Amino acid sequence: MSVSPSLELVSQNRSFAGWQCVYRHDAQRLQCEMKFGLYLPPQAEDQPCPVLFWLSGLTCTEQNFITKAGAQQYAALHGFIVVAPDTSPRGCQIPGADDSYDLGTGAGFYVNATQDPWARHYRMYDYVVSELPALISHHFKTEPHQWGIFGHSMGGLGALMIGLKNPSLFQSISAFAPITAPSLVPWGQKAFHAYLGEDRQTWAAYDPVQLVSQATQGSEILVDQGDADEFLEQLHPELFMAACAQANYPLKLRRHPGYDHSYYFIASFIGDHFAHHARCLGLGKDQ
Amino acid sequence: MSVSPSLELVSQNRSFAGWQCVYRHDAQRLQCEMKFGLYLPPQAEDQPCPVLFWLSGLTCTEQNFITKAGAQQYAALHGFIVVAPDTSPRGCQIPGADDSYDLGTGAGFYVNATQDPWARHYRMYDYVVSELPALISHHFKTEPHQWGIFGHSMGGLGALMIGLKNPSLFQSISAFAPITAPSLVPWGQKAFHAYLGEDRQTWAAYDPVQLVSQATQGSEILVDQGDADEFLEQLHPELFMAACAQANYPLKLRRHPGYDHSYYFIASFIGDHFAHHARCLGLGKDQ
Repeated sequence: MSVSPSLELVSQNRSFAGWQCVYRHDAQRLQCEMKFGLYLPPQAEDQPCPVLFWLSGLTCTEQNFITKAGAQQYAALHGFIVVAPDTSPRGCQIPGADDSYDLGTGAGFYVNATQDPWARHYRMYDYVVSELPALISHHFKTEPHQWGIFGHSMGGLGALMIGLKNPSLFQSISAFAPITAPSLVPWGQKAFHAYLGEDRQTWAAYDPVQLVSQATQGSEILVDQGDADEFLEQLHPELFMAACAQANYPLKLRRHPGYDHSYYFIASFIGDHFAHHARCLGLGKDQ
Repeated sequence: MSVSPSLELVSQNRSFAGWQCVYRHDAQRLQCEMKFGLYLPPQAEDQPCPVLFWLSGLTCTEQNFITKAGAQQYAALHGFIVVAPDTSPRGCQIPGADDSYDLGTGAGFYVNATQDPWARHYRMYDYVVSELPALISHHFKTEPHQWGIFGHSMGGLGALMIGLKNPSLFQSISAFAPITAPSLVPWGQKAFHAYLGEDRQTWAAYDPVQLVSQATQGSEILVDQGDADEFLEQLHPELFMAACAQANYPLKLRRHPGYDHSYYFIASFIGDHFAHHARCLGLGKDQ
């Protein structure tokens, strides 16, 4: 007899007639305690709801998105449950895990690490693709075929990569300022080298620009990119656009003059992303 | 020949086609350096704009409102410049100023202190009513007769009190979970005792419940209050309602079941407050 995975409610705040919650649980795949944000829209009171997973960027916890993005009003409008996990395992006593902002704590990169000292805990890919969806489905009433995924920067990489690899789990994809070609840029190279080792064949499995050519074609991906993004050289939207064009994968890439890499950029366009997912998932109210 | 007060731009982020800025300046009234947030809506590019002052609550800096309230989308919609000052002088080396969250740093209460060791720096009333409006008018193109004021908790007290005392400067008023009767509750008594001394006559000049009876009648005040507010006993909305009724001052007090004292509450209703100010100030687009 299997034991139900348990959830502990850390906080809940009324928000746009729903509830912004934070939960804590023992993550089996990560072998540590994890927290995630979950917005329950008002519609969740009496019907199963579609689900969006939000993946955050470097240094973030579950808090950044739920406090700064202004997402709740759109989740309430469309009736989405929104799940915002933390960005890495925490408190695992791994040597060096807190030494830099772009490796270890706050920088899980949504991969399954194979290298020491990371391999035991740093399995964010499995956590986001398997454990967390099962947990959410177990504890909340969801529409099983109306799940989407989006994210920002490192989390935009996660959203593109996980969405492209799991089209039956996540049927809609979008990203803000994603790291689209991690194998080619310093952030990705540092993390992939540490987590995955020297063999670049293994990196390809987590690289959106390389993945899109093999992906099962799904609905259009929406990518927003600010032209004043201070990290633009780590992101390479033009490579992802070229890869999608070559693979004939539908992509809407929008460039926004003057916008940077911050949550001010995300908040300015988050409403469009909710409308995009609602449209891709066939929800009625797509604004 | 007077020297123009100077402003230093600390940061600017593109937001809803406008700019969320933070400025630093030498505050003459406070004898210290101060920062404030200022949102410049897209309309500011080619026309003078109406202005809203937001006053924050205990422990806040200029950052809380600009990152968490989701105000920029409504400021852009209605074309408001939104000014969000810090909540106290900082770095003044006053003994005890950092000892508690509800007195000193982060807790200026928007009064002019008369008591040592506060009197030299803690003049937030003058700062908000005189210095900051002059500075904003000098550096930005504003509509001089379309200014409003709003705030939260201690800043809700500030908005009600400053608005009621300065109807020609601020023609519209609203508040979230304001401390309406500071003379009667622990937060207000502690601060007023320290800043203003024993004589309760001097407290009355900063107490909305006492001020409303002498106020020149203006447009309707909007107050939003969550019923699950964890600080409800410090706020006394019912006393303010009674005082407004007695004075025949128009008030719309809304109580919201389940909402607490947090920015999740503010974000849920901030759009209504912008619409309220737009209506009171006679702007076209009052949504």
